[in-house]
Amino acid sequence: MKTLIIGGGGMIGQKLARKLADARDDVILYDVAYPPDGAPAGTRLTGNLADDGQAKRLAELRPDVIYHLAAVVSGEAEENFDLGWQVNMMGTWALLEALRAEHIDSAGAYRPRLVFTSSIAVFGAPFPDHIDDTFLSAPQTSYGAQKACCELMVTDFSRKGFIDGLSLRLPTICVRPGKPNKAASGFFSGIIREPLNGVEAILPVPDTVRHWHASPRAAIGFLTHAAALDTDRLEGRRALSLPGVSCTIAEQIEALKAVAGNDIAKLIRREPDPAIEAIVKAWPRNFAPERAISLGFRAEPSFRRIIQVYMDDDLATA
Amino acid sequence: MKTLIIGGGGMIGQKLARKLADARDDVILYDVAYPPDGAPAGTRLTGNLADDGQAKRLAELRPDVIYHLAAVVSGEAEENFDLGWQVNMMGTWALLEALRAEHIDSAGAYRPRLVFTSSIAVFGAPFPDHIDDTFLSAPQTSYGAQKACCELMVTDFSRKGFIDGLSLRLPTICVRPGKPNKAASGFFSGIIREPLNGVEAILPVPDTVRHWHASPRAAIGFLTHAAALDTDRLEGRRALSLPGVSCTIAEQIEALKAVAGNDIAKLIRREPDPAIEAIVKAWPRNFAPERAISLGFRAEPSFRRIIQVYMDDDLATA
Repeated sequence: MKTLIIGGGGMIGQKLARKLADARDDVILYDVAYPPDGAPAGTRLTGNLADDGQAKRLAELRPDVIYHLAAVVSGEAEENFDLGWQVNMMGTWALLEALRAEHIDSAGAYRPRLVFTSSIAVFGAPFPDHIDDTFLSAPQTSYGAQKACCELMVTDFSRKGFIDGLSLRLPTICVRPGKPNKAASGFFSGIIREPLNGVEAILPVPDTVRHWHASPRAAIGFLTHAAALDTDRLEGRRALSLPGVSCTIAEQIEALKAVAGNDIAKLIRREPDPAIEAIVKAWPRNFAPERAISLGFRAEPSFRRIIQVYMDDDLATA
Repeated sequence: MKTLIIGGGGMIGQKLARKLADARDDVILYDVAYPPDGAPAGTRLTGNLADDGQAKRLAELRPDVIYHLAAVVSGEAEENFDLGWQVNMMGTWALLEALRAEHIDSAGAYRPRLVFTSSIAVFGAPFPDHIDDTFLSAPQTSYGAQKACCELMVTDFSRKGFIDGLSLRLPTICVRPGKPNKAASGFFSGIIREPLNGVEAILPVPDTVRHWHASPRAAIGFLTHAAALDTDRLEGRRALSLPGVSCTIAEQIEALKAVAGNDIAKLIRREPDPAIEAIVKAWPRNFAPERAISLGFRAEPSFRRIIQVYMDDDLATA
């Protein structure tokens, strides 16, 4: 089995590569850069999917499974309108077109599984208490709009039989190990990760903010489950909201106290940032992801468990 | 007021041009071709929006209002995958980017109203009894997917302030005057228009098919209402499902009999076409378009009224 991870240098890409290498897959990573201490697993290719010829280069490898994780993150896509649309939308379009060209060249024999990482940012306020599987995509960020466009493309290319794809609307991944990135949601990880590492963390939004989370370990589980899923079961609706944990910042902090003690939680410093608050306010708070659950996708049962997963998988090596 | 109609050579474009000329607007039409007996109203430009430089050419005119009606129709977009995506999606993208460039060149002073014609084909089965304003876009045709992508783009460019746009999900327009086009929905008009003109009509789907309609006159009303709407009232959700008439083919035929007599209705010949039936089966049947109604959009009260509008506006001149 030949597997390509686009965005293989990122946090999720690296964890996924390690898991697939353990399963003896032939893994090819693709990204603009790799961490210096990155996983040795797999062949590393370097490039930017949005550049001319890059999508073709990847499609010609004819991977059986392609995980497309690469994206300009939410905060950056909001700041840099051109970059977000060119990479997140046009880059994905170029990939789909290149895969279709291989499908046609192979007289239809080549039809890869594509697992596209979308986001809960495809949804925009006002929300119902629980977002169910028939709620509209009305994103209020450029990042969300780009992801929603890609979902539509992945579904249409799949319906036509050029690829066999699906889109996973990942919850906000928490606790991310390592350094903060430019995602507007970064503080959700920061307020857990930094204190557990003895470092002060900034909380830019009020305690009452409620959001939707899953661990990196759950995310890897979602991705590999999607790669093996019988897509006929999707009945043409190939974008899935995934299970997660809904909790407020206050509940996150309580969970941190329960796991690590009150003194650790004192390292969280409140420093309101209206720009981040405006972005996060337009994000979903809770879901009823019945389709994904019935298809066997699984997340953590509690935020406390999410913290423990971080401590087990990443804290020792951070 | 300078108004540009992209797709100005089409049936709706021509009717709109006549109405705007009556209102003494400065009207510019743009299309790949014009009907030989077309309206004299307005300046005619010829070109294909998807070709290099065409979007820039139009944006440089700096119209106050732009109606974007041009599209590869549903049946053709389903047959010709490349053409549909290049014209319907990439053509609209090019237009939005060209308008953004003018916005930036004018230091933000230029921010046109864009009325984009989307379609109820952005929705795909299974459906609730009435599709409300929060139901997901899960199109099952390439045409629907292309329109849904454009809605997302129009909304994001508007949210960023580059344009002031909105998307109208037109019901299936019925009764279309003139010759059939390649739209898979063409027979809905054909089974009324052809008999009223003494010509046999083909009905390719069963009588039980239910669908959602409005007249060309109602469509022109939707478009001009949208051009003048206070878009703050949309509260960031800039794609609207519009009012219409929900009825079955059997009810359409009954209305035709009531208006024109039984003998006229005998000109409808049943000739099942599984390809058309498959496309139409994935289309919506009924809506609860509360937002559009509260914003003042109005359609006909009955299918009988839709037939009468055709007889008043088009039958004499056909």
